Amino acid sequence: MSRVSPADKIAARVQASFARQQFMATLGASLDAVRDGEVEIVLPFSAALTQQHGFIHAGAVTTIVDTACGFAALTRMPDDAAVLTTEFKVNLMSPAKGERLRAKGRVVRAGKTLMVCLGEVFAEDGGKDNMKSKQVALMTATMMVVGTGTGLRD
Amino acid sequence: MSRVSPADKIAARVQASFARQQFMATLGASLDAVRDGEVEIVLPFSAALTQQHGFIHAGAVTTIVDTACGFAALTRMPDDAAVLTTEFKVNLMSPAKGERLRAKGRVVRAGKTLMVCLGEVFAEDGGKDNMKSKQVALMTATMMVVGTGTGLRD
Amino acid sequence: MSRVSPADKIAARVQASFARQQFMATLGASLDAVRDGEVEIVLPFSAALTQQHGFIHAGAVTTIVDTACGFAALTRMPDDAAVLTTEFKVNLMSPAKGERLRAKGRVVRAGKTLMVCLGEVFAEDGGKDNMKSKQVALMTATMMVVGTGTGLRD
Amino acid sequence: MSRVSPADKIAARVQASFARQQFMATLGASLDAVRDGEVEIVLPFSAALTQQHGFIHAGAVTTIVDTACGFAALTRMPDDAAVLTTEFKVNLMSPAKGERLRAKGRVVRAGKTLMVCLGEVFAEDGGKDNMKSKQVALMTATMMVVGTGTGLRD
Repeated sequence: MSRVSPADKIAARVQASFARQQFMATLGASLDAVRDGEVEIVLPFSAALTQQHGFIHAGAVTTIVDTACGFAALTRMPDDAAVLTTEFKVNLMSPAKGERLRAKGRVVRAGKTLMVCLGEVFAEDGGKDNMKSKQVALMTATMMVVGTGTGLRD
Repeated sequence: MSRVSPADKIAARVQASFARQQFMATLGASLDAVRDGEVEIVLPFSAALTQQHGFIHAGAVTTIVDTACGFAALTRMPDDAAVLTTEFKVNLMSPAKGERLRAKGRVVRAGKTLMVCLGEVFAEDGGKDNMKSKQVALMTATMMVVGTGTGLRD
Repeated sequence: MSRVSPADKIAARVQASFARQQFMATLGASLDAVRDGEVEIVLPFSAALTQQHGFIHAGAVTTIVDTACGFAALTRMPDDAAVLTTEFKVNLMSPAKGERLRAKGRVVRAGKTLMVCLGEVFAEDGGKDNMKSKQVALMTATMMVVGTGTGLRD
Repeated sequence: MSRVSPADKIAARVQASFARQQFMATLGASLDAVRDGEVEIVLPFSAALTQQHGFIHAGAVTTIVDTACGFAALTRMPDDAAVLTTEFKVNLMSPAKGERLRAKGRVVRAGKTLMVCLGEVFAEDGGKDNMKSKQVALMTATMMVVGTGTGLRD
């Protein structure tokens, strides 16, 4: 007899959709945590992601936090739905440099059609014992709950 | 005797900085036009850029229009300056699918410290004789004129 | 036999809803033009609207351009619908000072559920023969088409 | 011998500038709290502030949270400076209805030239013993530190 807890089911759903985002593999990003209404994504530094001053491009920063916010919203959506980003705004607070970036997305308002999410991106250096973390970006986003009649599904 | 027109000088400046954005090469994006206060970037479709439904990821869309807006602002900056994005907002209007994307960035207000830019992204199919174009995104952005005392230069 | 052209019907619908916005009267704003997908609102300068430096408060600037965008969206909505703002962003480009402000809102993408609008606010001085106009703000906004099952109607 | 603590000095500075914002009096808003990097403003419900459905207009909601964020930024600025809003984005999460609104603004990144602020607006009903509070709006904003050479001062 198989039993799947809701938390496992939510995580599996997000993992499956994340795996279909080929752009995540192109960047080298990985899914680090999935909780109800919250998702974390980690992106190691790579020169392939840089803008002209050697920082990680604001577009790459945006990509991981958009995905984190989108999947945070997906954890609150019914089974027969898909998630689409309708808009986001990003404030860039410090240059994105360091060993890796960590994007955290969470739902702040879950409506039937629209969900408002807050995203944060941190530049991290070092490991568990000597970690330094600095916020580099702040996002607010609106995610749309799209019916499967569109042909989309997550 | 060599003479460089201001237009050529501006284009050369943007081309040189664009070439240093390694993320543009990673995506496969190219600089298509540079005019005073306006820049266009083209990005051919690639599966490597997709999100889970097969559309180009909103983060890739944002990347090219952020770069287009940033370099549009750079065309209005003094020689001893660099450009940094401080914030942007993107409204996603249609799924980003098609043969290629075209991002257009232009300056709508050039201050000494901050420049406000408007960006648009279009999905294009076909060639010159049978081109179809549909807007997929709208950006407003603030670009900062950064002094070279920061060690940055464009 | 009475006949109402669609243009008149649209204008009447917007005028009726505008008249119910008591905040417009509080500010002293008036509806200046209604076209398919476009609305203009005029706000004369008043000391009662100022922030600490004597400029019109960014919140008053935002109010008139939000209303202009919302009613621009309403011109494209079915009869059994109401309009609600879900989000907007405003870039403030110059201090809001002058004889009056003019806000122009227009629809740039009309979906079934969401409409994306672009808004601009200008500070105007002088009359028809010697008008000076300067852009003070730029808005992008998302308006939602709300069903009358909510009890709302415009 | 008079001594003024830094906290008192900061509060006095914000109160003086708030008092010069005539639009606050027009709305009926009052300054409720000033702390280092944080400001709260309260706005009682009034029919004079409503949009067409009887909710407080998004522009009035924006006005108080813009002022809260701007003065939160001012608490971190040097004496010879003034604060100007350069941009903000607001997500409207629920209709603004209730006995009063409370806007909270706080600094999340204080740079020399630009400060990023986060603002929240809550609809409140009841008093201390039976208070109900619901978030109605979320703002991110960029405030500029303006030198007194501009003729502005706060």
